[in-house]
Amino acid sequence: MARVVLGLIGFGTVGSGVVQLLAQQKSLRLKKIAVKDLKRERPIQATCPLTENVSEIIDDPEIEIVIEAMGGEHEALDYLRRALEKRKHIVTANKEVLAKYGPELFALAREKGVAIFFEASVAGGIPLISTISKGLEANDISSVTGILNGTTNFILSSMESNGQSYDEALAKAQELGFAEADPTNDVDGFDVAYKLSILSALAHERFIKPESIFREGIRNVTAEDIASARNFGYRIKLVGTSRFSEDGKCDVRVHPMFVPLSHPLASVSGSNNGILVQGHAVGEILMVGPGAGSLPTASAVVGDTINLASALQLPDFATYFQPAIKSEWGAVVNPGSWSCPFFLQITVNDSPGVIGQIGTIFGSHKISLASIVQKGTKEKHADVVIVTQASPEETVRKAIEEMKKCAFFEKLKSCFRIFEKVE
Amino acid sequence: MARVVLGLIGFGTVGSGVVQLLAQQKSLRLKKIAVKDLKRERPIQATCPLTENVSEIIDDPEIEIVIEAMGGEHEALDYLRRALEKRKHIVTANKEVLAKYGPELFALAREKGVAIFFEASVAGGIPLISTISKGLEANDISSVTGILNGTTNFILSSMESNGQSYDEALAKAQELGFAEADPTNDVDGFDVAYKLSILSALAHERFIKPESIFREGIRNVTAEDIASARNFGYRIKLVGTSRFSEDGKCDVRVHPMFVPLSHPLASVSGSNNGILVQGHAVGEILMVGPGAGSLPTASAVVGDTINLASALQLPDFATYFQPAIKSEWGAVVNPGSWSCPFFLQITVNDSPGVIGQIGTIFGSHKISLASIVQKGTKEKHADVVIVTQASPEETVRKAIEEMKKCAFFEKLKSCFRIFEKVE
Repeated sequence: MARVVLGLIGFGTVGSGVVQLLAQQKSLRLKKIAVKDLKRERPIQATCPLTENVSEIIDDPEIEIVIEAMGGEHEALDYLRRALEKRKHIVTANKEVLAKYGPELFALAREKGVAIFFEASVAGGIPLISTISKGLEANDISSVTGILNGTTNFILSSMESNGQSYDEALAKAQELGFAEADPTNDVDGFDVAYKLSILSALAHERFIKPESIFREGIRNVTAEDIASARNFGYRIKLVGTSRFSEDGKCDVRVHPMFVPLSHPLASVSGSNNGILVQGHAVGEILMVGPGAGSLPTASAVVGDTINLASALQLPDFATYFQPAIKSEWGAVVNPGSWSCPFFLQITVNDSPGVIGQIGTIFGSHKISLASIVQKGTKEKHADVVIVTQASPEETVRKAIEEMKKCAFFEKLKSCFRIFEKVE
Repeated sequence: MARVVLGLIGFGTVGSGVVQLLAQQKSLRLKKIAVKDLKRERPIQATCPLTENVSEIIDDPEIEIVIEAMGGEHEALDYLRRALEKRKHIVTANKEVLAKYGPELFALAREKGVAIFFEASVAGGIPLISTISKGLEANDISSVTGILNGTTNFILSSMESNGQSYDEALAKAQELGFAEADPTNDVDGFDVAYKLSILSALAHERFIKPESIFREGIRNVTAEDIASARNFGYRIKLVGTSRFSEDGKCDVRVHPMFVPLSHPLASVSGSNNGILVQGHAVGEILMVGPGAGSLPTASAVVGDTINLASALQLPDFATYFQPAIKSEWGAVVNPGSWSCPFFLQITVNDSPGVIGQIGTIFGSHKISLASIVQKGTKEKHADVVIVTQASPEETVRKAIEEMKKCAFFEKLKSCFRIFEKVE
């Protein structure tokens, strides 16, 4: 069969991996690579000409598939739009552009009769996208949840295993190339929010506007929090969730959580990702693997390219490969309605009856407590650890506000959601 | 688009789940179900006529896809052959028939230009087959390893969590329907061997004759072994492995192993399966989920059917969906060449110098020891626990034989392979 001709935009970390893996694929021919600066040093030798003019790829009638591995937002969006207009099929790793402009791009692809493959945009090398869209085809997916960012998982793992502070662990991650100089995108949960938007589109047919996703990062997680978690049988993970609710809306959120040590997600360590998919027929599936890195991400990009190229041999294949994604954005539920157990640590004046007062406040909000433990007293100050049963966030917030008004209350030292099975 | 017409053979546990899930699929029409005995009570109502005559399905020109969910060997094989001869596409959950007659059946499918889909034959609801064949398309798969049998994992999990003996745990599993009246197929590792043959075909292009697969079951695992494992930081799991070796042969084997508690496989509990796939680009992927059960297995069968039916809309699709599987059987390596650390517990006469003698014997076979610990002495008998570094099996066997000849040696109480990262 004729070799399918490809153009690649971007020759950085992911692009280099792609070039390396494509060299082993006899049915594919990489014709040209577009780069920002021809003079830059590359970690590997290109196997085809480079150009600074991306039009040489987008306007080349021989090129059938454009692989976008440049990342970033506006420029990449412009190239993807132009490539789709020219009826090129797309393989992309760009979660930010898909999350922000997915409805428009998929509508354009449908109009032009071409396909967008995006396995690499979520969870790096883990074939999560194909699992949801093909492997679990017979299932209604009710939720996708888990660890979707390798950088923050690496930082949290280092904090625990090396007893480091957040700043120390971040510095180490930056030194090793796991975190960027400006870590905002990872540590504040933007990256996970983009991925959740994409996963929502696959599982629930609609992208979610990233700015409407409830988002808390890991900047405020302290070494003491990590130690507390451990003492109570948990490990802190940055967990992202997209859960379909009955009214057709989604609960989409990313925040740190206490994961029970016995739960498989707790053993997802270092820069790995781990994702739980809940389907009505299959129950729960867990996938764990490298969420980033040059070759793992390239593995997803090139896997997509091979599958797409074989499919191109089939006439009228585009319908078959177009995921059922609506052109409208999805709606999200009020994040306060989310229900889970909470772990709270507060500092109090150690006066008699404090535990009783706390119990009464939570009781008046109809929150059942799983445990309430007073830790060692020091000069009339004591720490109290409260673990609630699953309760709506907004109710727990109200109970906390009420405690703050009490004479015994000094400080809310920590407040974490506890991970439970998501249905 | 026209509804694709299906016939189903078998209306037991898996078949009932299939009927249930197909009812939700508007693009598929189940026309007839073949059963052994029309009078038998069914857990659910059929949505179409039943027949005792399977030819009414195989010979019906309107039926495009035959779903085989009857299980067993000779009769199922006969039906599959006849269906392929009639150019029906096949969806099957039958690991035994695929493992034993895979080369013949896939050759016949190729000759007739039809496809065999078999996601449900391995790891129940986990989309492992599509992950290896499509999701990790850009990878050379070097090994597939893990927990592939839910029944034995359930028994081993119960033994640990309830302190039961093997017989007690088996009886409980039978009572709950997780084990069959004759448990041979599961507990002696045949079921895993069949699955390994299929996984070898996907990962290494050749089925492996089940009888050439090295196989040890869990019948001899004692409550004491489970406790020893726990004391030393391990958990016993029945692990199946297919590993590609450099000479084009495969190391294919199933036996109990000590899995370190910190390894994600150790947290795969109850009747779940957990599989590690090693690809040259992606590194390691872990998938965990329900390995059996009516709806999970049906989820895989119906997922296959939907994907196959959509593909049928495309002309000439069969080439695209035929996995690259050779018609010859694959060759296996000598199982003694497998190398891993070993955990040995032996009873000795407690005389001075025993540890030194043991150390010398292992040293003379070039086996490095990770630790050697003497457990409490009782009336001049003591237990010695030896943990070796990774060493070839045949060498460890020789060292054991040599110890058996020594005056100090009384009994080999246990001998387990320790799970390490498989490359």
